[in-house]
Amino acid sequence: MITLHTWTTPNGFKASIALEELGLPYKVNPINIGADDQFKPEFLKISPNNKIPAIVDDETGISVFETGAILVYLAEKTGKLLPASGEARYKVLEWLNWQMGGLGPMFGQLGHFTVFAPEQVPYAQNRYKTEAIRLLKVLETQLSKHAYVAGEDYSIADIAIYPWINTLRTFYKQEALLEATPHINAWFAKVGARPAVQKGMTIGKEAR
Amino acid sequence: MITLHTWTTPNGFKASIALEELGLPYKVNPINIGADDQFKPEFLKISPNNKIPAIVDDETGISVFETGAILVYLAEKTGKLLPASGEARYKVLEWLNWQMGGLGPMFGQLGHFTVFAPEQVPYAQNRYKTEAIRLLKVLETQLSKHAYVAGEDYSIADIAIYPWINTLRTFYKQEALLEATPHINAWFAKVGARPAVQKGMTIGKEAR
Ligand SMILES: N[C@@H](CCC(=O)N[C@@H](CS)C(=O)NCC(=O)O)C(=O)O
Ligand SMILES: N[C@@H](CCC(=O)N[C@@H](CS)C(=O)NCC(=O)O)C(=O)O
Repeated sequence: MITLHTWTTPNGFKASIALEELGLPYKVNPINIGADDQFKPEFLKISPNNKIPAIVDDETGISVFETGAILVYLAEKTGKLLPASGEARYKVLEWLNWQMGGLGPMFGQLGHFTVFAPEQVPYAQNRYKTEAIRLLKVLETQLSKHAYVAGEDYSIADIAIYPWINTLRTFYKQEALLEATPHINAWFAKVGARPAVQKGMTIGKEAR
Repeated sequence: MITLHTWTTPNGFKASIALEELGLPYKVNPINIGADDQFKPEFLKISPNNKIPAIVDDETGISVFETGAILVYLAEKTGKLLPASGEARYKVLEWLNWQMGGLGPMFGQLGHFTVFAPEQVPYAQNRYKTEAIRLLKVLETQLSKHAYVAGEDYSIADIAIYPWINTLRTFYKQEALLEATPHINAWFAKVGARPAVQKGMTIGKEAR
């Protein structure tokens, strides 16, 4: 059995969507990051960077933090959503890393400066909005050529990106940035129609 | 033969260090990001996110952008610097992703607001300095327990982190942040003594 330590955030949803999609049995341990649960010693033992999500797999004794590593772990455990070799494997890893190193952190900064920051910082608001628009353009171009982010098959790269597009539209109130991205919007609707995505996006909510 | 499209930046050095460490033959194609080479159509074909580095492997016909994916590609091609399975594999992927999603982008923002930004933005300077200190503390704790970032063996996680600690100390002039991190400093000296690291850190310089 896998234990998923998580909270209702875009990074948390990546892990719950993947677990649902792969049909792996798991139980949820809510880590309320608003109440500083992520700094408790027992959580830091499995997630020394004090961030959710993290998983612990009883079957192997392996614990994993960082969603990029969690998604690869779950895909390699099941042999699904990430080809085992060849070009298709590295296309998935490219776009997964693009989410991890670009879209995730930069959308996160945009969220900070538009929703969370206690003061208005116009330079930073503008910087991260410009970067979000650039990233969306890269994604729009890719999705204008392919059915899914890393090619013709649904993969962990789609799972990594979906919850962040959702957060951009909803929590960050940046729907205007998606006005000229028809391919992203069609992909978002298609991915969002998957039962595993719908279920995964609810995980952790009962604990709030 | 592998072609490395790169420039003299911390992300570029990750790829050149790995190629040197693995003893793979490669040639270098300088992409001068100061002269907007990264926006040329032939480069965007292999790196649609307009960032260096990217590699093209003639032997397999595979091109890869995003250093997290490049490092995994090279490690899997050679069977080195990333265990093929088991706990040790996912410890490497955890810390590689921690670099990709945390240390890299956040140090990058610190660099932007302390070196590059055309105006002083105290709120952002303080935000990213605080985050850099937090990340360094996480790394210091990890290196106080292990010889290398992901455990007892040198791996692609060390290669991903080394050039960024170097940039923090030198280009970003943040050496003061490393005054209370003896384990990071000892690790930095040990990794920096490797011939492949020394050679890798020079790649691209002849083109400047
Ligand atoms: N790069 C990490 C990011 C994880 C992350 O940022 N988690 C946030 C919630 S979305 C968190 O736990 N924040 C609590 C904190 O930083 O104290 C990953 O992909 O797993
Ligand atoms: N997440 C990317 C980051 C790459 C990156 O930021 N590259 C910078 C140089 S260190 C770049 O090419 N910048 C040029 C640009 O953004 O136009 C990776 O790890 O490969």
